[in-house]
Amino acid sequence: MDQKSTEVDLGYARIDVDRAARTGDAEVVYGAGKTPAQIVGAMRALSQAHPDRPVLATRLSPEARELCRRELPGAAVDDVGRTATLGPSAPRTGCVAVVCAGTADLPVLRECATTVNVFGAHTDEIVDVGVAGLHRLLAQRDRIAASDVIVAVAGMEAALPSVLGGLTGLPLIAVPTSIGYGWHMDGLTAWLATLNTCAPGVLTVNVDNGFGAGVAAARIARRSLSSLRSLGAEPDA
Amino acid sequence: MDQKSTEVDLGYARIDVDRAARTGDAEVVYGAGKTPAQIVGAMRALSQAHPDRPVLATRLSPEARELCRRELPGAAVDDVGRTATLGPSAPRTGCVAVVCAGTADLPVLRECATTVNVFGAHTDEIVDVGVAGLHRLLAQRDRIAASDVIVAVAGMEAALPSVLGGLTGLPLIAVPTSIGYGWHMDGLTAWLATLNTCAPGVLTVNVDNGFGAGVAAARIARRSLSSLRSLGAEPDA
Amino acid sequence: MDQKSTEVDLGYARIDVDRAARTGDAEVVYGAGKTPAQIVGAMRALSQAHPDRPVLATRLSPEARELCRRELPGAAVDDVGRTATLGPSAPRTGCVAVVCAGTADLPVLRECATTVNVFGAHTDEIVDVGVAGLHRLLAQRDRIAASDVIVAVAGMEAALPSVLGGLTGLPLIAVPTSIGYGWHMDGLTAWLATLNTCAPGVLTVNVDNGFGAGVAAARIARRSLSSLRSLGAEPDA
Amino acid sequence: MDQKSTEVDLGYARIDVDRAARTGDAEVVYGAGKTPAQIVGAMRALSQAHPDRPVLATRLSPEARELCRRELPGAAVDDVGRTATLGPSAPRTGCVAVVCAGTADLPVLRECATTVNVFGAHTDEIVDVGVAGLHRLLAQRDRIAASDVIVAVAGMEAALPSVLGGLTGLPLIAVPTSIGYGWHMDGLTAWLATLNTCAPGVLTVNVDNGFGAGVAAARIARRSLSSLRSLGAEPDA
Amino acid sequence: MDQKSTEVDLGYARIDVDRAARTGDAEVVYGAGKTPAQIVGAMRALSQAHPDRPVLATRLSPEARELCRRELPGAAVDDVGRTATLGPSAPRTGCVAVVCAGTADLPVLRECATTVNVFGAHTDEIVDVGVAGLHRLLAQRDRIAASDVIVAVAGMEAALPSVLGGLTGLPLIAVPTSIGYGWHMDGLTAWLATLNTCAPGVLTVNVDNGFGAGVAAARIARRSLSSLRSLGAEPDA
Amino acid sequence: MDQKSTEVDLGYARIDVDRAARTGDAEVVYGAGKTPAQIVGAMRALSQAHPDRPVLATRLSPEARELCRRELPGAAVDDVGRTATLGPSAPRTGCVAVVCAGTADLPVLRECATTVNVFGAHTDEIVDVGVAGLHRLLAQRDRIAASDVIVAVAGMEAALPSVLGGLTGLPLIAVPTSIGYGWHMDGLTAWLATLNTCAPGVLTVNVDNGFGAGVAAARIARRSLSSLRSLGAEPDA
Amino acid sequence: MDQKSTEVDLGYARIDVDRAARTGDAEVVYGAGKTPAQIVGAMRALSQAHPDRPVLATRLSPEARELCRRELPGAAVDDVGRTATLGPSAPRTGCVAVVCAGTADLPVLRECATTVNVFGAHTDEIVDVGVAGLHRLLAQRDRIAASDVIVAVAGMEAALPSVLGGLTGLPLIAVPTSIGYGWHMDGLTAWLATLNTCAPGVLTVNVDNGFGAGVAAARIARRSLSSLRSLGAEPDA
Amino acid sequence: MDQKSTEVDLGYARIDVDRAARTGDAEVVYGAGKTPAQIVGAMRALSQAHPDRPVLATRLSPEARELCRRELPGAAVDDVGRTATLGPSAPRTGCVAVVCAGTADLPVLRECATTVNVFGAHTDEIVDVGVAGLHRLLAQRDRIAASDVIVAVAGMEAALPSVLGGLTGLPLIAVPTSIGYGWHMDGLTAWLATLNTCAPGVLTVNVDNGFGAGVAAARIARRSLSSLRSLGAEPDA
Repeated sequence: MDQKSTEVDLGYARIDVDRAARTGDAEVVYGAGKTPAQIVGAMRALSQAHPDRPVLATRLSPEARELCRRELPGAAVDDVGRTATLGPSAPRTGCVAVVCAGTADLPVLRECATTVNVFGAHTDEIVDVGVAGLHRLLAQRDRIAASDVIVAVAGMEAALPSVLGGLTGLPLIAVPTSIGYGWHMDGLTAWLATLNTCAPGVLTVNVDNGFGAGVAAARIARRSLSSLRSLGAEPDA
Repeated sequence: MDQKSTEVDLGYARIDVDRAARTGDAEVVYGAGKTPAQIVGAMRALSQAHPDRPVLATRLSPEARELCRRELPGAAVDDVGRTATLGPSAPRTGCVAVVCAGTADLPVLRECATTVNVFGAHTDEIVDVGVAGLHRLLAQRDRIAASDVIVAVAGMEAALPSVLGGLTGLPLIAVPTSIGYGWHMDGLTAWLATLNTCAPGVLTVNVDNGFGAGVAAARIARRSLSSLRSLGAEPDA
Repeated sequence: MDQKSTEVDLGYARIDVDRAARTGDAEVVYGAGKTPAQIVGAMRALSQAHPDRPVLATRLSPEARELCRRELPGAAVDDVGRTATLGPSAPRTGCVAVVCAGTADLPVLRECATTVNVFGAHTDEIVDVGVAGLHRLLAQRDRIAASDVIVAVAGMEAALPSVLGGLTGLPLIAVPTSIGYGWHMDGLTAWLATLNTCAPGVLTVNVDNGFGAGVAAARIARRSLSSLRSLGAEPDA
Repeated sequence: MDQKSTEVDLGYARIDVDRAARTGDAEVVYGAGKTPAQIVGAMRALSQAHPDRPVLATRLSPEARELCRRELPGAAVDDVGRTATLGPSAPRTGCVAVVCAGTADLPVLRECATTVNVFGAHTDEIVDVGVAGLHRLLAQRDRIAASDVIVAVAGMEAALPSVLGGLTGLPLIAVPTSIGYGWHMDGLTAWLATLNTCAPGVLTVNVDNGFGAGVAAARIARRSLSSLRSLGAEPDA
Repeated sequence: MDQKSTEVDLGYARIDVDRAARTGDAEVVYGAGKTPAQIVGAMRALSQAHPDRPVLATRLSPEARELCRRELPGAAVDDVGRTATLGPSAPRTGCVAVVCAGTADLPVLRECATTVNVFGAHTDEIVDVGVAGLHRLLAQRDRIAASDVIVAVAGMEAALPSVLGGLTGLPLIAVPTSIGYGWHMDGLTAWLATLNTCAPGVLTVNVDNGFGAGVAAARIARRSLSSLRSLGAEPDA
Repeated sequence: MDQKSTEVDLGYARIDVDRAARTGDAEVVYGAGKTPAQIVGAMRALSQAHPDRPVLATRLSPEARELCRRELPGAAVDDVGRTATLGPSAPRTGCVAVVCAGTADLPVLRECATTVNVFGAHTDEIVDVGVAGLHRLLAQRDRIAASDVIVAVAGMEAALPSVLGGLTGLPLIAVPTSIGYGWHMDGLTAWLATLNTCAPGVLTVNVDNGFGAGVAAARIARRSLSSLRSLGAEPDA
Repeated sequence: MDQKSTEVDLGYARIDVDRAARTGDAEVVYGAGKTPAQIVGAMRALSQAHPDRPVLATRLSPEARELCRRELPGAAVDDVGRTATLGPSAPRTGCVAVVCAGTADLPVLRECATTVNVFGAHTDEIVDVGVAGLHRLLAQRDRIAASDVIVAVAGMEAALPSVLGGLTGLPLIAVPTSIGYGWHMDGLTAWLATLNTCAPGVLTVNVDNGFGAGVAAARIARRSLSSLRSLGAEPDA
Repeated sequence: MDQKSTEVDLGYARIDVDRAARTGDAEVVYGAGKTPAQIVGAMRALSQAHPDRPVLATRLSPEARELCRRELPGAAVDDVGRTATLGPSAPRTGCVAVVCAGTADLPVLRECATTVNVFGAHTDEIVDVGVAGLHRLLAQRDRIAASDVIVAVAGMEAALPSVLGGLTGLPLIAVPTSIGYGWHMDGLTAWLATLNTCAPGVLTVNVDNGFGAGVAAARIARRSLSSLRSLGAEPDA
């Protein structure tokens, strides 16, 4: 196949339809700053080029989600995580525990979980386990330990990754969020906290970047030894 | 008594020897930026003006501590907390639990505890209760709950105040410290974390300001109802 | 009682109705980012679970306050402090002086004062005592000294806590506010000032965090020795 | 076994000798801020408590490395990475490609590689593949693709992780370093770059934190499917 | 000619119509913060004062572009680059390659390219050559090398100038953009990256400043030796 | 006189000996970053060019002050303010009150006061009037009001200018200093405070810039109406 | 006169009607954050309390200016400077040159000039003298030198105060503005520039604070020796 | 020629001896962080590989310059610019005016000028033309206008590039320096100023980066039309 044929020209963008072959990942439309029509057009083009693979769109406005529902009948649209998915489900191996403290972090958690699924791994979503209520967190300890990799979504002072990091030796990705009550410098507080955690080996991504954490977590989970085990299980919420 | 007589002129500084009468506190010599001789001179002048009250000096260099030992025979000098205390002990009522995660935070914890004692309250020092080892922290829960006010000294991501704040309804003061492994902007990380804690009602002071936290904690403890109880107890380390 | 029964599931959030038992505090609904319906629903659920205790909602939009007035007949709604309170008054002991420089700081002062009352202490609100008009501040000196703890709400350069800290030895909490005329970095100026005050023992909370200061002040006041005295007094505005 | 027996008291610190059992990791002595004698003492105590496991010490000063050489005969000391390792090698499965642009980043790369080995995975170190000399980087493409996880150590503008992220779908950890020629704010430039990479799924740690990246990479590699394959290979430099 | 006659007074501004004589450049109306009527008025005045030279207006709102179309019949209006040009084309010598990674950077690229043309040089616009798809960039290498100066427009982590700087010895101007997915501090990330590039000799301008880069690039290109050659070529898109 | 003759060439610098004629000010040697020999050489050259005017050198190291004492017999050297003055006194008119809170601010106050004198105005130095001891400040109120302009030198939270600004309508210059106990960002706290003061009309200079404030204050004082009065008075310390 | 009678209670604020007696200044209503009705009410109350003095209101919204025009017949309303003035003109002595580079800085210049007039000094407004067109600035040199004090209003890189400071020895106040084309951090660039000027003795105020500069400049000008001269002149625009 | 033969392996570094062939530039050894012996070794290796081309070393410590003098007999060592040059002079075409305000900026100016010469262009160094002494700058106007490109080195508020940009239409590169008297954030002030200049088309490099500016300026000058003219002239200092 020659170089040219890996791209689809939509007029407003050339889409690289062969990226998955190079990296093993799904194709993604980043919705922020695009019109609903551009998003739907890009999703359709990518889906037609690769009918055997899912297409994910993220950061969709209410208008974009509405148009996806109307124009892309088979699409799964998530209003909390602001995503749409088109095409067949990806086969899933390995499991990612996606954990957060409260309802304010749910949009980031959902964006992450959907990304994990589209990129080929199972998810186990665990909400309401903030460090100011330790009994709830400790009650979920075994469930978390059963996964291949943990994504801890945390705003405010972002203490959750540190506490989780002391309870487990699993790969652990922290997603700082821009959630807070006062002067937190748009998430800088949570970001600095995740980078300065006293628990060794915690990895991090940009503020509110549930998508990036999901891509990385899926890559780790689907090549995990324990993923052999998890092929039968379906913990996804 | 006229205005003039409340001050002692040492040549390099006029010392206000009547501050305690206005605020109820001890007199303090802030040692940073002063020569050992200036520190010793200031302590002696304050002690002579008020032989019935203790004098505290903080942030002492090794040389200043050495001179205090040599020139002020009755002084109690603490090499960890970098303090010296001269004169009679203050009567103590109420108890402050001073808590930290590890040995790196000890200098700030010791500065705080000595300040609490000099300003008239008991202390209970609890070290090595970091959030990455929750079992240690939970094991000290009852001991912490027995105090009138908690001072939580914490560096790095400073998750300790948040976890403590979920375990108790006592007044809680967080002291962020400049301890960290990587890029933490000289304690800004810990500082922001203590101000953005998800546990309501946590108070904070400046980075590494064990003295300030100690003054505030003593003021709270010594006017506490439970201080009636604590007059007999002596938990100070 | 088992673990489960301490939570109420509202669909969009699980509410911890037993927090007060652990910490001695009231239950609070943080209104920012929630719909009016969610706020009213959460207040009603908490009030039904604990009909003997007040429920506080903060940071309410005009729409949320309107719905509280319509749907929660017994609720006390404060348009300045942007709060609503439901249920019986908490018994009050001890007194908090809540002080600010001018009308621009009133919303934060009111949020703080209502929180103090709901968390079980009296309040004495003192407005218009900025440092650029010292005679006003000095005229209120005795009134301030009669409280158990002071909350000083201050924007701009936030000099008020420093001046108060030199006039009294009471526990003193500074609330920096985001009020200012020019480039003040959203309250960073006031925040830095309160943390660098030359008066020892000043405690601080996040910018505009009247709620957090109120929780802390009430905890200090209600366990204060002098609270024995204040049971008869009613200085609340 | 009771709680107490998992700690060794050295006078200046209580060492938690059972951490590995909880997390599956080795024990580590963080050398910065400790005296050479304290470091040697801590390494010896941990090694005696667990003679079957390696002990790693990081951020060692020249004096500390000298004392390790003299007092701990079996220790492997690395002057570039500033580490010392004591005890038997850990069994290794899976392989981490540790990549950097130039000699200035070597200390961080070596700290990372040694950590990976001690935490149980093989390493393949690839130096001098900066983006300003693309031909060198492209020449190593197959070698990098043969690993289970990549650690990209990069200072200045830190473009390396982005370029690598476009060439592979492997898990990829970026370590920003404080290396630079001009005003780079102590590594903030590299740090921001790694968090804003245009390649999806890049994870990051704090500036210069080769240790943290090594812990995370080893955890991912040693539970990787392809680690079955790598048991025979020995690419470590 | 006296001093006065070089200015045109429009009531709301005195316009310096002789600037070009001093610097050799065209006249420019910076549209941000001006009303559509003010912009059209200023363009007309400048064009009448110098009917032999083009007038450029930048940062035009949709309303301003609409009015330009209606009121200035001969004007060329660009909705992507948000510019309008009035009057005869400037003679062009030398060629500027204007390069960017993706569609999000197109507005800045177009503003830059139009500025280059108005200030007297040819342009060759090359889009979609981001570093995460190296094969695209390498495919355009010869085309880029055929110019006199390169302008690299790059957002996010802005790795493009570094990679280009390693492939060529041409004068190279980086334009960091405020394009990004997460916490990038309004373009600070890209800005810092362009200033810390590992490729020597990269010049930079302010974030999103396509105009400034265009002015500088045209000045370099039109006095370039190779501009003798380029007089016949017309690579402008 | 031709252009050339206004400069003296010392080899390492051309000195502009005619600046005073243009601005009415004295000549100044900024000592930071210069060797003692360079400083002495520059002072001598300026003094010989204008034997009727004083020469001021600022920010002198101990070594530079020592050399000034040895090589410039008539020089007045101030070890607190780190200045040296050579040549005849300037005639003085008008009076500047230079005020600070404590001994830590003395070096900046002295640099300012000496500058005021050299630039032709009287000074009245008032030390130890911090806002945490209001009675001291109020006791000096009349003395401050008797000057033509006030310079308020203040570190930490820098509340002094605000309080002074409420007590007087005189021109008021604040000099923030880098004095502080904790995290104050090298004087940013004081700087922001002086710029956000609630007292209208407060002017400010850079952190620790006693020299700049002195130049400005002298310019204001010596052209003041009341300077007619002050010609006989000599309040300088 | 007793304390009470110096204040007027409007319900939403107590207004200090005796401030002018203490500081010699006019009374001012800061309009930002107040409703049009509150502003008009405050102006009227202050004017009635002191019918012999002008009242100034600043930072007025279009709606507030409209209401001032309708409700306060004698008020002078300035739509550029966003101010309203009520009552008799203040007597003026001394003259302030208010200078800026371009039309973008006009609102700040007008706010400043009106404040100067209300606070009792003449003004000479000089616009369009930016440093990128030196000939314009040099042409106004004598006019500037004829004033008692200069206010230089400057945005972007704020080079104007430095250039002016080299041309004159008059008191000079810089007002940095938030005007800029690219990434200038809301005026931080201009602010830092004015504080780091190479011309000695430049004073500064907060970003865009034309009011503060005007108060200070008037205080300097009206007590200036040359104000004797200026009583006859009327340079105000 | 195969890939390998373009590199020389020195044990501690592989040196790319063929970079010049790719980019047309000289080879450079960045001296910061290297030992004197490593620097001398690298210079010798590069010089032997390309005896027909100069080798430049920058940021040399006094010790490194001493060793260069001793070990590399033909080397030209500059103590002000901290550079050493080895091998034959590069042929020079075109001319760069390198301009600065004062002696404090000389090290950066000299580093830049030497780099320009080594990279193949003439230089004209013009010192002491700060904006606070406009007459000096205007006196050099014709000399500056005779060059092909200007490098303006400027610290403090960095107003020089703006003033120069208004006087000329030549390509103009600003080098902000970390020179300043007070709080300037290590050159951030100058950096922001150069990026926010009101003169269009000013390019910039990192703080103190005389080398980078020199590389860029030489690339522009040596391909300049006027370089045909300048082959005979020798303005280099």
